[in-house]
Amino acid sequence: MEYLDNIGKRAQAAKPDLQHLKSEEKNQILRKSADDLKLHAAEILAANEKDMEKGRINGMSQGLLDRLLLTEDRIAQIAEGLYQIAALDDPIGEVLGMKQRPNGLRIGQKRVPLGVVGIIYEARPNVTADAFGLCFKTGNVVILKGGSDAFHSIQAIVTCIRRTLSEANVNPDALLLIEDTSRETTAAFMKLNQYVDVLIPRGGAGLIRAVVENSTIPVIETGTGNCHIFVDASADLSMAVDIIINAKTQRVGVCNACESLLIHREVKDKLLPVLAARLQEKHVEIRGDQEVCELVPDAVTATEEDWGKEYLDYVISMKTVDSVDEAIAHINRYNTGHSEAIITESYTNSQKFLDEVDAACVYVNASTRFTDGFEFGFGAEIGISTQKLHARGPMGLLALTTTKYIIYGNGQVRP
Amino acid sequence: MEYLDNIGKRAQAAKPDLQHLKSEEKNQILRKSADDLKLHAAEILAANEKDMEKGRINGMSQGLLDRLLLTEDRIAQIAEGLYQIAALDDPIGEVLGMKQRPNGLRIGQKRVPLGVVGIIYEARPNVTADAFGLCFKTGNVVILKGGSDAFHSIQAIVTCIRRTLSEANVNPDALLLIEDTSRETTAAFMKLNQYVDVLIPRGGAGLIRAVVENSTIPVIETGTGNCHIFVDASADLSMAVDIIINAKTQRVGVCNACESLLIHREVKDKLLPVLAARLQEKHVEIRGDQEVCELVPDAVTATEEDWGKEYLDYVISMKTVDSVDEAIAHINRYNTGHSEAIITESYTNSQKFLDEVDAACVYVNASTRFTDGFEFGFGAEIGISTQKLHARGPMGLLALTTTKYIIYGNGQVRP
Repeated sequence: MEYLDNIGKRAQAAKPDLQHLKSEEKNQILRKSADDLKLHAAEILAANEKDMEKGRINGMSQGLLDRLLLTEDRIAQIAEGLYQIAALDDPIGEVLGMKQRPNGLRIGQKRVPLGVVGIIYEARPNVTADAFGLCFKTGNVVILKGGSDAFHSIQAIVTCIRRTLSEANVNPDALLLIEDTSRETTAAFMKLNQYVDVLIPRGGAGLIRAVVENSTIPVIETGTGNCHIFVDASADLSMAVDIIINAKTQRVGVCNACESLLIHREVKDKLLPVLAARLQEKHVEIRGDQEVCELVPDAVTATEEDWGKEYLDYVISMKTVDSVDEAIAHINRYNTGHSEAIITESYTNSQKFLDEVDAACVYVNASTRFTDGFEFGFGAEIGISTQKLHARGPMGLLALTTTKYIIYGNGQVRP
Repeated sequence: MEYLDNIGKRAQAAKPDLQHLKSEEKNQILRKSADDLKLHAAEILAANEKDMEKGRINGMSQGLLDRLLLTEDRIAQIAEGLYQIAALDDPIGEVLGMKQRPNGLRIGQKRVPLGVVGIIYEARPNVTADAFGLCFKTGNVVILKGGSDAFHSIQAIVTCIRRTLSEANVNPDALLLIEDTSRETTAAFMKLNQYVDVLIPRGGAGLIRAVVENSTIPVIETGTGNCHIFVDASADLSMAVDIIINAKTQRVGVCNACESLLIHREVKDKLLPVLAARLQEKHVEIRGDQEVCELVPDAVTATEEDWGKEYLDYVISMKTVDSVDEAIAHINRYNTGHSEAIITESYTNSQKFLDEVDAACVYVNASTRFTDGFEFGFGAEIGISTQKLHARGPMGLLALTTTKYIIYGNGQVRP
């Protein structure tokens, strides 16, 4: 496809320009981009109004309209994100583990940009500047393909940042937008291996599945979270209640929220009445097994489907178990590899849980809500990987880098 | 597909059994597997003779027949590989970078197995034990899909190792073989995401391309090598000749052999006569640009196609360039991201080459033939990755592992 081929070639041409930039030059441009977004807010808001108008006419839901909406404040937040990225350490150029081999060769791994990163997302205009910031900081060219519902907003943000790049005498093709939002072009983009090193989908489960199934470019998969908390027989029950309330209700629509609770049979009588009352204050619906339903009059009987479900809502499933082993087996069967927690005072069970639960993040005595790039101290987040290759768990700037071996010799040949 | 579904379920069931094994237990089983392969060599050789017989009838080439052939000696070599893997350090269980966050959470990354590794290969029976050894050492279940031409040999090796596992009271499903070698089954295997964490193709370019294009499971791609050497104006020409002869002729059929030479115009007159004479001793055909052909009477004129070609043969392409920049641009256009070398005495040009050449391994003043897991000191090699995600360059045991975050709390909730 000629259109994409042209975009790919421009990305490749911009790659060396980016790699020549020093950290301080990159940071200045990030700060200038943030300034300019605020300066040209009117332009961006006008474009956003076009998308909003179309959304209203097409009967877009209130929730989606809110995600689409930009305001002066939200633009200031987007700019703040870029200032923060500018303030982070630049991971590029570090040489890891340089060692001398017996033949005198010195071999080390140098951290370098991936090259060209493709990002496919939906109707969240803020992802535009965020993705640019993370990729630019790590010396990567980024090709964006945003949702058609946010087309004008995305285009306006891209235009503004590209202008900043040009004014700074940096190749504006460091940020490229696929303006053709047809399905055919999107499908072809996922097979642009010749030009694109990695593809990152940012959005709902449907988008991610479509990218995983159709892309021939390596994908960094960010995923859904069916996160469990297991309350062991030895748990401090007051700590357990606080953690469960936090993990379930502090924010319900996020992937690190708790969706399912496992309770050791020995503590169900003590825990459930207190916990159920606290959950009901927050209007959380409980879907339980028979024993839970006997103790919680308002609980609904859980079906098999409930154990595998990411509600993203004021709903929680609950099951009683006989042991940490049963809890681990249940979690490893139904979880999505995101975040899992045990509440226990047992040393042996805490270690067993950490060892045997198969997930990106496994907690003892803490809320699953901490699975987050900022909470982990990375200063930025590209997403949370629930796959096992390249990056697992919250991804910071390092996930947008790779390494190359650099080898210093003085005439070595292989015997 | 019920057959594969059953294999996938058995792999998942074997996973926890493997993860409970201590390093010393794994090493004992690796050594016992090696002993048993030698003990049952007659069984394996009889099976191999069936494959050889079929190959001869089907007119298989001499080269392929030789790759298929097993002998007592070759079985001893396969066993030796397993002893060596047993002797390596076990990377599983190491905790990296545990840090305390301001809220008291302690967060670290624990190295863990990938889980279930799928390996698709061709008619090299030795890959069978090698793949098992690397996966078993790192606590991974392995599902093998070998070439139908080596079916009986592979089956005999798998049977022998599974017997060793059973005798050691380890779940023999740590090693699973897909015995249905039909195309439909192979295609369905590449989409077994539910059970398989990563797929590694080991074989020629065609096999690798087919896996990359059709697999929905994440793939670790091992690749071809169109490796270049650039002789700079300031090069020690005698060192250059030695390195070129080594990189081109020490072994021609391997991915880290040199396929293309770039020569700074200032040194062509001095270098080429000496180099051409040395290459001709080894019967290497030279395909050069006009300037090369003028200096080397026997050289053939190179076509555009030559610049992108991995010959894997006694052939080398040669081009004159005006600068290190021109050399880098040519390499970044035509290389396959494998191994590239500069021969120079210039500090500035050596750093420029290391910085700007986009490849897994970039050398100064050494032969590209060193790109190898053993030469890099890993003690084992799964392959050489020419992609940028997860692993780049020679892959040792670490490439078969991932990490999970383990988090120790004492009641933390997110504010």
